[in-house]
Amino acid sequence: EVSFDPKEHQHLRYNPLRDTWVLVSAHRMKRPWAGQVEKPPEEHIPRHDPSNPLCPGNTRANGEVNPDYDSTFLFENDFPALQPDAPDPGSDQHPLFQSKAARGVCKVMCFHPWSDVTLPLMKKQEVVKVIDKWAELVEELGATYPWVQIFENKGAMMGCSNPHPHCQVWASNFLPNEPALSDSCQRAYYQKHGEPLLLQYAKQEAEKKERVVVESSDWLAVVPYWATWPYQTLLLPRRHVLRINDLTTEERGGLADIMKRLLTKYDNLFEISFPYSMGWHGAPTGPHLKEDNCHWQLHAHYYPPLLRSATVKKFMVGYEMLAQEQRDLTPEQAAEKLRNLPEEHFKRREN
Amino acid sequence: EVSFDPKEHQHLRYNPLRDTWVLVSAHRMKRPWAGQVEKPPEEHIPRHDPSNPLCPGNTRANGEVNPDYDSTFLFENDFPALQPDAPDPGSDQHPLFQSKAARGVCKVMCFHPWSDVTLPLMKKQEVVKVIDKWAELVEELGATYPWVQIFENKGAMMGCSNPHPHCQVWASNFLPNEPALSDSCQRAYYQKHGEPLLLQYAKQEAEKKERVVVESSDWLAVVPYWATWPYQTLLLPRRHVLRINDLTTEERGGLADIMKRLLTKYDNLFEISFPYSMGWHGAPTGPHLKEDNCHWQLHAHYYPPLLRSATVKKFMVGYEMLAQEQRDLTPEQAAEKLRNLPEEHFKRREN
Ligand SMILES: O=P(O)(O)O[C@H]1O[C@H](CO)[C@@H](O)[C@H](O)[C@H]1O
Ligand SMILES: O=P(O)(O)O[C@H]1O[C@H](CO)[C@@H](O)[C@H](O)[C@H]1O
Repeated sequence: EVSFDPKEHQHLRYNPLRDTWVLVSAHRMKRPWAGQVEKPPEEHIPRHDPSNPLCPGNTRANGEVNPDYDSTFLFENDFPALQPDAPDPGSDQHPLFQSKAARGVCKVMCFHPWSDVTLPLMKKQEVVKVIDKWAELVEELGATYPWVQIFENKGAMMGCSNPHPHCQVWASNFLPNEPALSDSCQRAYYQKHGEPLLLQYAKQEAEKKERVVVESSDWLAVVPYWATWPYQTLLLPRRHVLRINDLTTEERGGLADIMKRLLTKYDNLFEISFPYSMGWHGAPTGPHLKEDNCHWQLHAHYYPPLLRSATVKKFMVGYEMLAQEQRDLTPEQAAEKLRNLPEEHFKRREN
Repeated sequence: EVSFDPKEHQHLRYNPLRDTWVLVSAHRMKRPWAGQVEKPPEEHIPRHDPSNPLCPGNTRANGEVNPDYDSTFLFENDFPALQPDAPDPGSDQHPLFQSKAARGVCKVMCFHPWSDVTLPLMKKQEVVKVIDKWAELVEELGATYPWVQIFENKGAMMGCSNPHPHCQVWASNFLPNEPALSDSCQRAYYQKHGEPLLLQYAKQEAEKKERVVVESSDWLAVVPYWATWPYQTLLLPRRHVLRINDLTTEERGGLADIMKRLLTKYDNLFEISFPYSMGWHGAPTGPHLKEDNCHWQLHAHYYPPLLRSATVKKFMVGYEMLAQEQRDLTPEQAAEKLRNLPEEHFKRREN
């Protein structure tokens, strides 16, 4: 009998945060790629572009003029998917034709006045300002809205239509699918095991080491055991923290550090500004603030699409959409690759 | 009070096949697009390319020579994600580090000997041959495997690495996430309402008409009420049918017809060979053949990525990956657009 080798033998892994499985077929990395190649990210972005609506002092689509900001800058999305006052669709409620009111707000936050920087290239104190603003928004919007989704689409490959460093914050009057699923998985785990799922997980990973990418005294970034995207990571505090606004000043500094280290490794992997979508998940807010949410642990998910090089991504298509997600290298192989990369950004080395 | 208009007011719609919600914000179509544009599909594909491993008479990666086939042609995927004999990962089964054996087979099926045709451009009888082969494969592989996933990735945009018309068939020793979810949703509906979910749905849609794209005496294609992709469709028989191999000869002819009509409309929408991923879902097989599966109804999902034009797709990124899927036009608007397109293929008109 051949003995099991995760790098050679396909297998399924369980994602306890979504109650789903991923098919790991690492031997598939050997196949040649004759499919679509992506345009590598734009390399020469001007620091200030007079026609870019996100730069300081410029005019946006709705005619508003941006202030001459010198740190973060927050404004309402000019084309929001969620608005505060949409009417209720009412009650044509056949079980197969169900609709519900959706209300909320969509905000955009620029990270920095310059278009030619990204988080790993910003100063630690500048990243702390971003984190403080995230915390402030969760505090403010979370006072009434049950869910505040902070997310960053980075790179044209991830549908980002503006190279200026920014993220979005969409708050809604409903708990969206993904956090609802994560909530129920974490709750069930807590009820069964008496400890938050992600706290137990972080402890195990910190001991096992094989999937750790970067760590510090208060933070941990791993390629999760159940990662679906090739270089997906999970970033979380080691202490039990429910929401981003619960982080102490020290922990925010630690978060800025570990984000810079993680994102520098990402950029160094293929020596490009690494595309990804990322977002924060913490305990629900609004009416949920009054509930016991100790099954929750704050965390960020990073979902980067690239697989083989700066121009070849993983396509989550036919089998993945219709049946189940499939990955082509093991999470341990991905973690090892990232772990072994330098922590100095390749752009700094070039200068 | 403003009255609710689905084209103007964002709202949530329920997907009863997945027990999830989609955010519909049709007013977002008004925003300008400055993001990534895709390469339109290759227009001039040679009928026979001596270097294409899928063409008749050519040599594949493993050294095998394709026969000089003149209809469909089936072979084992040279880089399979599933193999019949992978060893069991064994039992390091901490609840947060669960793995399972994955075994199966991956096959590729060419639709036609020519590289420059697609299903809507093939003759009806040629499409029937494809359907017969699908049925044969579900019969054969489904004798032992619990799930046989037939899917087609069409176009480089959908990760397809070969322009020759083909699909894939992956059979597995496990029920993948998506069919498992669909199975439990259909089962719960049947238990509550005493009728298969999709049969009741098809009847309602055939009456309402507003989401119908094409229909015939035995088949129906609609943009489902809960569609997430801009021009997503659901294709299903009107009669209660569990699996594709249960279709009668007449129904197979009817399926070939309606597929040609639906796919012609897709191609006519932006006058290109329309990219999509599609696949069939029917009652599970193998050990499930002995069970009562009358809650199931055979259907195909088509997931096309394009939103605005031949080169601008919908990006399912940050908010969609982290929170919930969001769409930018209503399913009724999409259905109306498709319904009003001619049923003659734009390439035929050009000739
Ligand atoms: O098997 P292919 O066509 O080489 O590969 C394509 O389809 C597979 C199944 O959906 C995906 O896993 C791959 O990412 C995609 O590129
Ligand atoms: O809001 P943006 O950056 O214009 O748009 C981007 O992010 C949104 C939220 O993930 C997506 O719905 C869009 O498809 C994507 O292009």
